[in-house]
Amino acid sequence: MSRSVDIEDIRAAAARIVGQAHRTPVLACSAIDEMAGARIHFKCENFQKVGAFKFRGALNTVLSLDRTSLERGVVTHSSGNHGAAVALAARIAGADAVVVMPENARRIKRLAVEGYGATVILCPPTQEDRERMTAEVIERDGRTLVHPYDDPRVIAGQGTAALELVEQVPGIEVFVAPVGGGGLLSGTALTVSSLRPAAAVIGAEPLEADDTARSFAAGRRIPEASNRTIADGLRTSVGEITFPIMRQRVSEIVTVPEEAIVFAMRLVWERMKIVIEPSSAVAVAAVLARPGALRGRRIGVILTGGNVDPDELPWQAFGLIGPPPEPARR
Amino acid sequence: MSRSVDIEDIRAAAARIVGQAHRTPVLACSAIDEMAGARIHFKCENFQKVGAFKFRGALNTVLSLDRTSLERGVVTHSSGNHGAAVALAARIAGADAVVVMPENARRIKRLAVEGYGATVILCPPTQEDRERMTAEVIERDGRTLVHPYDDPRVIAGQGTAALELVEQVPGIEVFVAPVGGGGLLSGTALTVSSLRPAAAVIGAEPLEADDTARSFAAGRRIPEASNRTIADGLRTSVGEITFPIMRQRVSEIVTVPEEAIVFAMRLVWERMKIVIEPSSAVAVAAVLARPGALRGRRIGVILTGGNVDPDELPWQAFGLIGPPPEPARR
Repeated sequence: MSRSVDIEDIRAAAARIVGQAHRTPVLACSAIDEMAGARIHFKCENFQKVGAFKFRGALNTVLSLDRTSLERGVVTHSSGNHGAAVALAARIAGADAVVVMPENARRIKRLAVEGYGATVILCPPTQEDRERMTAEVIERDGRTLVHPYDDPRVIAGQGTAALELVEQVPGIEVFVAPVGGGGLLSGTALTVSSLRPAAAVIGAEPLEADDTARSFAAGRRIPEASNRTIADGLRTSVGEITFPIMRQRVSEIVTVPEEAIVFAMRLVWERMKIVIEPSSAVAVAAVLARPGALRGRRIGVILTGGNVDPDELPWQAFGLIGPPPEPARR
Repeated sequence: MSRSVDIEDIRAAAARIVGQAHRTPVLACSAIDEMAGARIHFKCENFQKVGAFKFRGALNTVLSLDRTSLERGVVTHSSGNHGAAVALAARIAGADAVVVMPENARRIKRLAVEGYGATVILCPPTQEDRERMTAEVIERDGRTLVHPYDDPRVIAGQGTAALELVEQVPGIEVFVAPVGGGGLLSGTALTVSSLRPAAAVIGAEPLEADDTARSFAAGRRIPEASNRTIADGLRTSVGEITFPIMRQRVSEIVTVPEEAIVFAMRLVWERMKIVIEPSSAVAVAAVLARPGALRGRRIGVILTGGNVDPDELPWQAFGLIGPPPEPARR
């Protein structure tokens, strides 16, 4: 398998997923613009199918498979949106899907995966167990792995969100996307560096899961998974394939503390009337944390997903009853 | 003051508010379509300024005033969105605004009104006290009343939401809007009966505040305010001016129980990833309650607002922890 990805792969992915993936709208909010001192364009992947951008990469991968691979089916491991994305993508392609999920995954996420017709296999909640059990399924059935991020087909699919944003809003000077494994951020960086070479790309990462920021600082990949952040989509390690792409094309990784993530999530709910999950809020928090560097700029923020359990809102767990305080300006 | 309103007034209102009021987007959701057995187009007034369609009527009214009236300022009574709408409209027009609010109004609503620069006067929480205190302010200052619904300028302003929807989505066969005082529903009915005479207009009302449904059944206006419904925007009495317009142009009033309202509100949050308040959910619940009558039709639903206190979500008060049950089909 080739490990390289370029803008032609992203254009091909866009052509492959068109009609199945939504071309999501771009929203703006003058109140948040005022707070940030900038003009922000929010690319609403929370409105994407399965409620997250993950559908783009999963669908591109599944639709890239040959007939034999489709007949053998696909497998992935995921505690969240990627599992649902692979399940729906497989259903669309007429393929069978197995999703390996940790025993402690949220019931709402498991129901979503099963609702799309995939088989769920539960495993102990460690990265090692997930990977081991996935490898066993591949060995047993000959299924194709749809990796959550470290695959050129997945990266190309995720890059289509920025491709649409570039077409929808001219003149964006800074693109901001969250980073977990790096599928979205590397795809975004490939798109932007090719089509808007003068624009900057910034990665937003939870301070409590900052392995990409530390890898940037060290100049080499220092993978580490973390369960400490509320942004459950960003707990994974930075990828082998995604890291060099990001290192070459991403200007900076901005890290944000948990309080700022929850504040940003609530702010978007209250001011924009849209539901975003904590991982999306990380990008918003990064913009709010750096008003100086971004002041007056035209910014594109990818809101990655909207899958939140309405019975478990983080501002309750965080004791943020009543309007929360302003986030610290760092 | 003339009590009549027609499509030319609505077109004039649209020209008056353009550039200040948002032309809100129309969204769709295949999962909800499947549940309803219909194709639903959601007009997202929850994305309107101040978070509700009320801004349209308030702005149209304030921008219709002459210089002397603007200098004397405006006044209204409201426990919610209309107060914020008048406050912002007055600020845009450079006029002073007073909003009479009940002492038990939610703090979040009062802060919003004050945030737009209006003066809040608190009164005991009865309709009589609100009206008496408003009359006193008018007597004292010579301010113009911006009525929450029973005013041709307000009705014409509210009718601009349906005007946009008609332009945005061709071929809608049934328009559904909630009814409290009737400003939105009468404005919607005026627009639809003029521009899409073959389409039906349905009003959606909480069963616990069903004075419009009872007035329709009786053939005469039976005003009654109710505090029993969670849909706090729809507790007001049906209006004197709005009632005859609705009686002539609205096909039917559908009433929905509280559980169905909360179910619909949560459903829209979970499936569409947008925040709507209970009054908006009443229209969605009406569509879900009548799958037979609406099956296969192309439906336009006005989502009226999105102002919800994130610390007081109704499914918690209603004990709806976990996926709620299907609403009763009636």
